[in-house]
Amino acid sequence: MPGIAAPKNQERNRGRNRDNAMEPPPADDYAKERYGLLPMIQSQEKPDRVLVRIKDLTEEKADEVVWVRGRIHTSRAKGKQCFLVLRQQQFNVQALVAVGSHASKQMVKFAANINKESIVDIEGVVRKVPQKIGGCTQQDVELHVERIYVISLEGRATVNQDTRLDNRVIDLRTSTSQAVFHLQSGICQLFRETLIGKGFVEIQTPKIISAASEGGANVFTVSYFKSSAYLAQSPQLYKQMCICADFDKVFCIGPVFRAEDSNTHRHLTEFVGLDIEMAFNYHYHEVVEEIADTMVQIFKGLQERFQTEIQTVNKQFPCEPFKFLEPTLRLEYQEALAMLREAGVEMGEEEDLSTPSEKLLGRLVKEKYDTDFYILDKYPLAVRPFYTMPDPTNPKISNSYDMFMRGEEILSGAQRVHDPQLLTERALHHGIDLEKIKSYIDSFRFGAPPHAGGGIGLERVTMLYLGLHNVRQTSMFPRDPKRLTP
Amino acid sequence: MPGIAAPKNQERNRGRNRDNAMEPPPADDYAKERYGLLPMIQSQEKPDRVLVRIKDLTEEKADEVVWVRGRIHTSRAKGKQCFLVLRQQQFNVQALVAVGSHASKQMVKFAANINKESIVDIEGVVRKVPQKIGGCTQQDVELHVERIYVISLEGRATVNQDTRLDNRVIDLRTSTSQAVFHLQSGICQLFRETLIGKGFVEIQTPKIISAASEGGANVFTVSYFKSSAYLAQSPQLYKQMCICADFDKVFCIGPVFRAEDSNTHRHLTEFVGLDIEMAFNYHYHEVVEEIADTMVQIFKGLQERFQTEIQTVNKQFPCEPFKFLEPTLRLEYQEALAMLREAGVEMGEEEDLSTPSEKLLGRLVKEKYDTDFYILDKYPLAVRPFYTMPDPTNPKISNSYDMFMRGEEILSGAQRVHDPQLLTERALHHGIDLEKIKSYIDSFRFGAPPHAGGGIGLERVTMLYLGLHNVRQTSMFPRDPKRLTP
Repeated sequence: MPGIAAPKNQERNRGRNRDNAMEPPPADDYAKERYGLLPMIQSQEKPDRVLVRIKDLTEEKADEVVWVRGRIHTSRAKGKQCFLVLRQQQFNVQALVAVGSHASKQMVKFAANINKESIVDIEGVVRKVPQKIGGCTQQDVELHVERIYVISLEGRATVNQDTRLDNRVIDLRTSTSQAVFHLQSGICQLFRETLIGKGFVEIQTPKIISAASEGGANVFTVSYFKSSAYLAQSPQLYKQMCICADFDKVFCIGPVFRAEDSNTHRHLTEFVGLDIEMAFNYHYHEVVEEIADTMVQIFKGLQERFQTEIQTVNKQFPCEPFKFLEPTLRLEYQEALAMLREAGVEMGEEEDLSTPSEKLLGRLVKEKYDTDFYILDKYPLAVRPFYTMPDPTNPKISNSYDMFMRGEEILSGAQRVHDPQLLTERALHHGIDLEKIKSYIDSFRFGAPPHAGGGIGLERVTMLYLGLHNVRQTSMFPRDPKRLTP
Repeated sequence: MPGIAAPKNQERNRGRNRDNAMEPPPADDYAKERYGLLPMIQSQEKPDRVLVRIKDLTEEKADEVVWVRGRIHTSRAKGKQCFLVLRQQQFNVQALVAVGSHASKQMVKFAANINKESIVDIEGVVRKVPQKIGGCTQQDVELHVERIYVISLEGRATVNQDTRLDNRVIDLRTSTSQAVFHLQSGICQLFRETLIGKGFVEIQTPKIISAASEGGANVFTVSYFKSSAYLAQSPQLYKQMCICADFDKVFCIGPVFRAEDSNTHRHLTEFVGLDIEMAFNYHYHEVVEEIADTMVQIFKGLQERFQTEIQTVNKQFPCEPFKFLEPTLRLEYQEALAMLREAGVEMGEEEDLSTPSEKLLGRLVKEKYDTDFYILDKYPLAVRPFYTMPDPTNPKISNSYDMFMRGEEILSGAQRVHDPQLLTERALHHGIDLEKIKSYIDSFRFGAPPHAGGGIGLERVTMLYLGLHNVRQTSMFPRDPKRLTP
């Protein structure tokens, strides 16, 4: 019996096996060394054995003997045979244990009794199958099992299915979840790749802050030694300070905290912000174009590199492919109002868009321009924060913008006021206590270049790109007013 | 007067200029349109003008007329001439305003009076200089100024130098700070590039958590609606849950919070963690090798891509180049003890290393092996957390490791106990209340692969790579028990 595959530590196994009906192989079984529960891997040995990935089990490997580690996805015993489906992330393969020279009756029974979700090591021969196996990603081959050892046992098999689905660890093992989060990892990477290519610098901004920069609403309080502090609602002040410190073009990816009691499909109390801030030369559209192009590069990269993931999610949640234009469509707020009014919506010039109006506008834009992604520019000044730069000619509008995917907002941004005197005027106009934002205003007293930026919600981008309907599907461990676990 | 360069909005300028002695150009000045304070850039226009980067001002551009935007770094008036040094991040160039056909006496005076740190737009001719300019990064050319306009005025010139240095925005503008944080951005990018190349997936883990996983010491409390919660001391539980959820190899970069009242050169209450967790086949050294190779790829990438930054920092903080071996040196704890004892340190077999011993060991290792980076493996079980996997043969030692740069710890890691029964035993042995870690232990009841990982402190890696002496130099906005601002 070569290598570590021998169930040598029966003492320990008995302990580990306490809650389970699996018996050690009987002494008179001719296949007794070919199956069993392995001792816990405690880094005893470093065998040379190569574990083949399930996604690499193709016709090219036909008739090779391979070792594979995977989870028992399903198992079905049928007379002298047991069919297993072995899973690794999004990929799975059929494995057959059949009574014969390698497997005894007892070994087939052992295989059939392994709890689903347990992890097993299998040695087997890759065999071409005459007919494609419909239920598996590896459709052209199956594994003929010669050895099977349990590496880690699923020990709560009596728990019902509902409880399992409530438990995120198990839910994250499904093909759909695996695909969603592999794609989300890709969004972050594409975002950074694109921005680093454009000369941006990544920054790290503090999350514990001493003052609530936007006046104190919806902010979480932290006890900080003998005093108290807040959790940052956005990295905006710090991004702007980096611009004032001449970093020129910066981005960051990090948690953003909102103590908002919103229980909707698209609000979380903690989400991941993809943030951009950039000094510009003459016009904030220089920044808008950089951000929009970054989004376009992300969409293209996802199409090119994540087709498998997109198709996997589409199987469970069918959805039209995401459409976008290049360059990105930029509509002015007043044009959007005209489109909405034509569709029967009554709205004032300086009124903000409601969520239903945003969704309707998304449909109207899709019909007219055939795009799921667009920029809405030049919002009324009245509906934007005090630090938003007013338009140079029309005091009722502002140099600000949102970006939308499938009719839902994913980014909010603006040219920021970089002049301390105008910033003071605007804060007073909004009735904000100057004392509370003193350090913010002071940041601009050392010479500040004109700049603009925006913040993107990662979970929303993932959700809307894939056409999902709840941001909790795209947050690994979502936080909302009612959920803090796992 | 073409484009936006005309100081047209004198009304606004007068307001902005309130605290400053700068006068608008007199009407009888023949150069009056060639200088002044510009109206605030509010995205009025989109001129075609190209702003050349200072680092691109080389002999190849000799005799070209260029526009440059930069900060006034220094200024020195001398008769009919004014020498300015114009700065952009780490780069600077000399600019000369001299009375002649383009510049009047008043214009030279205006230039000389601009507060340092103000941002200016300059049009000028690039001229080769007969002798290298020692104080500038662009040594072979200077700019002969034909127009100079102030874009944003430094308005607190009366504040003393100490106050300025206390103010991070100004401090971050220095060449050293610019170099430090450009290099730090590079560390993050190299970390991710390497791991994504190795098949790792980036994950996002929550920072607000419901239970303090390691028993409740040194944790910040957050008020969470009507209840309370904690700030995560590390993403470890969540990384491990991702392994249990079959993500196989994961990493994350994010803030880590420690409510520790440590006021040392290397402790922060909030720092950036570069975290890795990985399922392995047979031995945790598979993971140790991946992590060590990732560090080596970072060191190599910094050498290749960030020479300018390294040299800039070395000018202010001289230091020997960082040395490392490939593959990385791995010492066992007992070997290190023997080296320390030989050097006169008295230590027991199961005692942890003190900070001075770590530093001494770093020097001994450097002398013997000529490396600033090494792994210390197989720590005594007694000095590691309860979730550390014991060695399979010697119950006094463990499958755990630290990594060191220039004698200081930058990573701590281990094979984790993935068996819920052994985990329970270990927690009881450490006197930990099982109720408080129930959800942690339960995560391993659904079948968990053997796995190991570690967490790296970004600020420490930056500090030690560059041979700096305080982690506050490598955190943009450091947080410690006494500092929460800016």
